[in-house]
Amino acid sequence: MNAYHPVTPDIIEALRGILGADAVSVAQADIDLHARDQSHHPAHPAEVVIFPTTAEGVAATLKLANAHCIPVTPWGVGTGLEGNAIPVRGGILMSFEKMNKIVAVHADDFQVTVQPGIGHKDLNAELARFGLFFPPDPGANATVGGMLANNAAGIRTVKYGASKDNVLKMQVALADGRLISVGSRSVKQASGYDLLHLFVGSEGTLGIITEATLKLVPVPMHMSAVVAHFSTVTAAVETVVAVRGSGLDPAALELIDAAHAKMLRETEGVPLKDYPTLFMEFHAALPETLEAGLKSVREICEELGVIEFRATTDTAERKRLWHARHHSYEIMVRSHPGKQFFIMDVAVPISAYPDLISFVETVTARDGATAYMIGHAGDGNIHVEFPYDTPESFERAMKLNGEIVMQALKLGGTATGEHGVGLGKAKYMPYEHGESLDVMRAIKATLDPNGILNPGKVFPNE
Amino acid sequence: MNAYHPVTPDIIEALRGILGADAVSVAQADIDLHARDQSHHPAHPAEVVIFPTTAEGVAATLKLANAHCIPVTPWGVGTGLEGNAIPVRGGILMSFEKMNKIVAVHADDFQVTVQPGIGHKDLNAELARFGLFFPPDPGANATVGGMLANNAAGIRTVKYGASKDNVLKMQVALADGRLISVGSRSVKQASGYDLLHLFVGSEGTLGIITEATLKLVPVPMHMSAVVAHFSTVTAAVETVVAVRGSGLDPAALELIDAAHAKMLRETEGVPLKDYPTLFMEFHAALPETLEAGLKSVREICEELGVIEFRATTDTAERKRLWHARHHSYEIMVRSHPGKQFFIMDVAVPISAYPDLISFVETVTARDGATAYMIGHAGDGNIHVEFPYDTPESFERAMKLNGEIVMQALKLGGTATGEHGVGLGKAKYMPYEHGESLDVMRAIKATLDPNGILNPGKVFPNE
Repeated sequence: MNAYHPVTPDIIEALRGILGADAVSVAQADIDLHARDQSHHPAHPAEVVIFPTTAEGVAATLKLANAHCIPVTPWGVGTGLEGNAIPVRGGILMSFEKMNKIVAVHADDFQVTVQPGIGHKDLNAELARFGLFFPPDPGANATVGGMLANNAAGIRTVKYGASKDNVLKMQVALADGRLISVGSRSVKQASGYDLLHLFVGSEGTLGIITEATLKLVPVPMHMSAVVAHFSTVTAAVETVVAVRGSGLDPAALELIDAAHAKMLRETEGVPLKDYPTLFMEFHAALPETLEAGLKSVREICEELGVIEFRATTDTAERKRLWHARHHSYEIMVRSHPGKQFFIMDVAVPISAYPDLISFVETVTARDGATAYMIGHAGDGNIHVEFPYDTPESFERAMKLNGEIVMQALKLGGTATGEHGVGLGKAKYMPYEHGESLDVMRAIKATLDPNGILNPGKVFPNE
Repeated sequence: MNAYHPVTPDIIEALRGILGADAVSVAQADIDLHARDQSHHPAHPAEVVIFPTTAEGVAATLKLANAHCIPVTPWGVGTGLEGNAIPVRGGILMSFEKMNKIVAVHADDFQVTVQPGIGHKDLNAELARFGLFFPPDPGANATVGGMLANNAAGIRTVKYGASKDNVLKMQVALADGRLISVGSRSVKQASGYDLLHLFVGSEGTLGIITEATLKLVPVPMHMSAVVAHFSTVTAAVETVVAVRGSGLDPAALELIDAAHAKMLRETEGVPLKDYPTLFMEFHAALPETLEAGLKSVREICEELGVIEFRATTDTAERKRLWHARHHSYEIMVRSHPGKQFFIMDVAVPISAYPDLISFVETVTARDGATAYMIGHAGDGNIHVEFPYDTPESFERAMKLNGEIVMQALKLGGTATGEHGVGLGKAKYMPYEHGESLDVMRAIKATLDPNGILNPGKVFPNE
């Protein structure tokens, strides 16, 4: 473990000199506000919270921190689910709250350049008047910087890709204070090493994103929604494969398990049956495409034994159908007063999805644990949600988490499809990556030899 | 420049021990066959050509070469256009001719695992019976390994992405002989650094790909083609932007300039007018989608002043319409007997496309050079094709190449959209990447400290 230097009064003074007095806070309220994310991971205070307003300020801060061996943890808005932005080694917490501007809209290029602190929902509200949007949507109003750092994904990844698929160029501040540009505004790039994607998903451990040019897509003119119940997860997954194989290009292909459907019906009267349920969404430029597509989807579902099929192209009805999916988390929390939730994230090749779900059902039943499953089935990604209210129920959920991760790896999957490694998945990295983890360590040592960037994350026992 | 060790008889003997006597050749015919690619770059002989049949053989060869500081240049089938696989420092030429198998088809996962030496056309012929295909298509029957190493792209990138967007997992042999696995068969990946994309596009200079799991897509059930003439490049590009903005999701959006259209008409009677011409292709799961889409595209083209618009959903007619585009290179070569062609590759944000083309027209006219332009307009990627038959006409093309690259960079683009850096673009790397090039060098030094992997490529003056 690295020996870090404390944030002394001299360092505070130097930070004030670099960033201005207003941008440097040691107020307890600021420390507390940036000590934990939305996960179960314990809070840990930084020694100082800073609010840079320019890339140069970020770079100069890193140069100072590197010279004195002080940890720097970048912070978007704290919606992480694996402790990704908790400053577990103290030091400097770098908030991007004040770097939240749109730098330029390149409408004809279907691109926008932003500062990292902008929320993706706020960005999309601005982009609506250009008829464009940035598709990745992790649910919460995460910042673009946080999304890129963690390769966040969400519901519409099956059509539009994850964060890493929707970024072209970034400015990155390195540990030694260099500011570099990676990628290009050209959508085709074959010039040298893909540093862009090396920094994307590196969770702030290799460099800090200070600006990003994102790929945008046209806001769909027409949308439809489908809700379909199946008697088994296997039948639902066969439907997922058939819909993807049909070339109908779904924009969302979501699954909730029977337990989740039952809970939604019982607690809020959501009109669902107690079966594995698929939620689908389709986007089209023309109404004809949507209508013909829905007919096709219905045929596929009927062929695969759908129990009930509902579809609509009407906006209000679509929102009503999807309400249960979009608000499933809040509904779940409301229906379990006094309980907290641990949400775990794994992903497998879609053919292994029924096996994974069956494994989760078996081990949770064995341990008498309550668990709800909600998944981005089109991507083979699933979240198991464990309510807990005692040390015992928390420990049980943690133990099950470990078993499910190892099973996902055994099935050819990954320990995390979209939440990132952070603190919670670090210990599984050797099992997933083997000797590749040594290559990751070598790259980390090359770019951040003093280990100042978001220490304690990604790598086990560091 | 590194001092390399020659391939001595002892090394040949050691290679025979590792790979078997049949897999090691010093025959002049084999040396000659692997001394040049399809570019203008001068041939250079390797000292030995090897044909490994297993990943372990590749890794053991690298371990030996690394211990003795001998260059190793990986070779697919030699269709590179920038000298990417020419063994300019001699040493070992590693051909993947005998590692050309399909390892596994994961049809329900829309994935296939292959050895790197398989040609993408051969792969797609096999995949047809599963109703699936690997979309990147650089034209020639390049190997999958070569395509991944160079991030090859081609005509249908606007819908399906480049090679880097269609790979999930690879096995890679490192310079020191370690065999590692990068990426995952899970389509969603947020676990650690994206080493997969670090190796993709690194042109064999960081590691050698020994196996790859590719993303596949359903073979489109219905396809349409459009050929449309416009009076100016600007009008054609406005159409490109409008078609992309419509959400109609074109599968190809190609441009040829008026000179190219004229040449095709005059030499082979291709029914084209002497105007900038767009070729488009659309893929759909349902015929209704295609018909409605074509109507929309026609309206967009008419609104933007199309001179002539032809469209079809008939397969034979579609092939006839696209013939000129698909065979433009052969037709061009046939119509210039005795001349060779230098094909250059740059890409810019689409809004800069008219400026770039206008620049090319201006400088070629200034120098009295003949040049044809053919481009993947949907991606802002263009190839300028220069016929030459004298040292003077070659030098003129080289000089124009340099000017066009620098202009593309000035317009926010890249020195290469899909041909890679190889030998030809290395000198432009500092202009494009600035300090990022130092980061690339640091990563190269970390993974290949002796510089044995494909030396002389990507970096200038190495």
